[in-house]
Amino acid sequence: MSEADLIAKLTAGLPTDGSVHVGSGDDCAVMDMGMISDYLLFKTDAIVEGIHFTADTPPEKIGRKAIARPLSDIAAMGGWPTHALITLGLPEGYDEKRLAAIYQGAGEMGAAHKTFIVGGETTRTSELLISVAMIGECDRMYTLTREGSKKGNAIFVTGELGGSLAGKHLDFDPRLEESRWLAQQFDIHAMIDLSDGLATDLRHLLGKKLGAELRTPAIPISRAAREQAKANPSGKTAILAALTDGEDYELLFTLPANQAVLLHDQWKEKFPDLPLHCIGKITNQPGITLRDNKGVLPLNVKGYDHLN
Amino acid sequence: MSEADLIAKLTAGLPTDGSVHVGSGDDCAVMDMGMISDYLLFKTDAIVEGIHFTADTPPEKIGRKAIARPLSDIAAMGGWPTHALITLGLPEGYDEKRLAAIYQGAGEMGAAHKTFIVGGETTRTSELLISVAMIGECDRMYTLTREGSKKGNAIFVTGELGGSLAGKHLDFDPRLEESRWLAQQFDIHAMIDLSDGLATDLRHLLGKKLGAELRTPAIPISRAAREQAKANPSGKTAILAALTDGEDYELLFTLPANQAVLLHDQWKEKFPDLPLHCIGKITNQPGITLRDNKGVLPLNVKGYDHLN
Repeated sequence: MSEADLIAKLTAGLPTDGSVHVGSGDDCAVMDMGMISDYLLFKTDAIVEGIHFTADTPPEKIGRKAIARPLSDIAAMGGWPTHALITLGLPEGYDEKRLAAIYQGAGEMGAAHKTFIVGGETTRTSELLISVAMIGECDRMYTLTREGSKKGNAIFVTGELGGSLAGKHLDFDPRLEESRWLAQQFDIHAMIDLSDGLATDLRHLLGKKLGAELRTPAIPISRAAREQAKANPSGKTAILAALTDGEDYELLFTLPANQAVLLHDQWKEKFPDLPLHCIGKITNQPGITLRDNKGVLPLNVKGYDHLN
Repeated sequence: MSEADLIAKLTAGLPTDGSVHVGSGDDCAVMDMGMISDYLLFKTDAIVEGIHFTADTPPEKIGRKAIARPLSDIAAMGGWPTHALITLGLPEGYDEKRLAAIYQGAGEMGAAHKTFIVGGETTRTSELLISVAMIGECDRMYTLTREGSKKGNAIFVTGELGGSLAGKHLDFDPRLEESRWLAQQFDIHAMIDLSDGLATDLRHLLGKKLGAELRTPAIPISRAAREQAKANPSGKTAILAALTDGEDYELLFTLPANQAVLLHDQWKEKFPDLPLHCIGKITNQPGITLRDNKGVLPLNVKGYDHLN
């Protein structure tokens, strides 16, 4: 069972009330706390040694990543972060200097986005664990969720995809400024940040009734994904890496197709250093298909053999 | 190094700003989020199998405890809880039914205090870990912290102390209603919830300049602590258990001595089933002393031999 399925199952029967604008199942929970024009955003995200980083990862980068991941989730809601708490799971004989460097990296990443670490706690665990709880805010009028795409919407993605584990996963910049600008300037229907790979995360925007047709040549492939494919011809192709590698931390979103040209033009002026690509459109045929000059093929979770 | 010292050291150099009313080092962080009359409270607390519960603990009680602990921290600020997120660290081969029962217990405990679980996430760990991030609110006029005690203040504690691991640690009721009533009705100078034992937690109210003189016969000893002392004459005495056992989850607070009688009278009427005891007074002599009919002795962290 996937994490999303397990959480959905566990939280299905839990009580709720009118203060919960968006509950489990989006990038953040969204609550009405009585603030005049804003909602409160609430998110937790944990990284664990051996899974999300290794004993060799520079400790400042570990702290940076621990904070940058939930920052990316705040971005996916069109919001801005404000405060964070850090829970440390510490193994026997932990290295205090390493911890201090992790905190240093976390504090700097937070401060770069006006997110202040206001405390935390420690507990004993077998492997080093850094769990970040983060709050933020979003404008009631410009709150983005995973719901809301419509047939015919254009699908856009920021940056380039695939190969993140070669380095980007420790150095990525959460797209906070970009998402707020998008939320305020355009009629964004739905948004998510890419953490599990395009093929998986796109499904979260589709629900049960919608589908997506991607134009394969339009999918932006990172240099790292190309280099990895070249270095290992028997491994993933570059396009497969762009579709399925995790930890891209880019924004995937939909908006009415008639805004696509205007968006392209204004984006180039506003964010000249960050690529933005229209990679396809929303359909009313559930599932994801890939279109190239040879035709259209379905993209199955376990069937990428047609991607050459 | 204690957890409190480690966190204080790690968070000492981190940036902050004016939105942080109370940062690291209290039961919750307190933030000004622009709500008209309230502050936001923010807390995380993790429990781990083998430390805070065992493989034999009924899973509903595990979930109950995971939520009740941060509820108790919210109570210590004079606030009320609103929402929580649950991070699960899952070992290989976890039992999905057990998880569902943990969630059930967590959801019920939350709902009993109008605290709604709005999502969460899972990660892979060696031992089962349940980390709860919780937010709440408190009235700007009635925010209680660990700071503010003055020489001559009376020291009060709710309930009875010691022996919690015999059962109470899985069944305790966070003193939310009591703390809000206290904050609104009396001039409470400082408050903390007892999680590490009276002798340890009282020090957090004293800082470097204040001390406390406790009247030993006034310290309320739980039935469990008495029974354990009787069953194991070579172990902790009952009064030592009341002073040093953890996980009491009672409120410890200070207020001007001239309000003590009125508080006693009104408390009995308002909360007839929960004992409240005045156990001593704040002094300007750093350290904690114990007074009984034989005289006054210092209470040292490592020296309880005089307690017979």
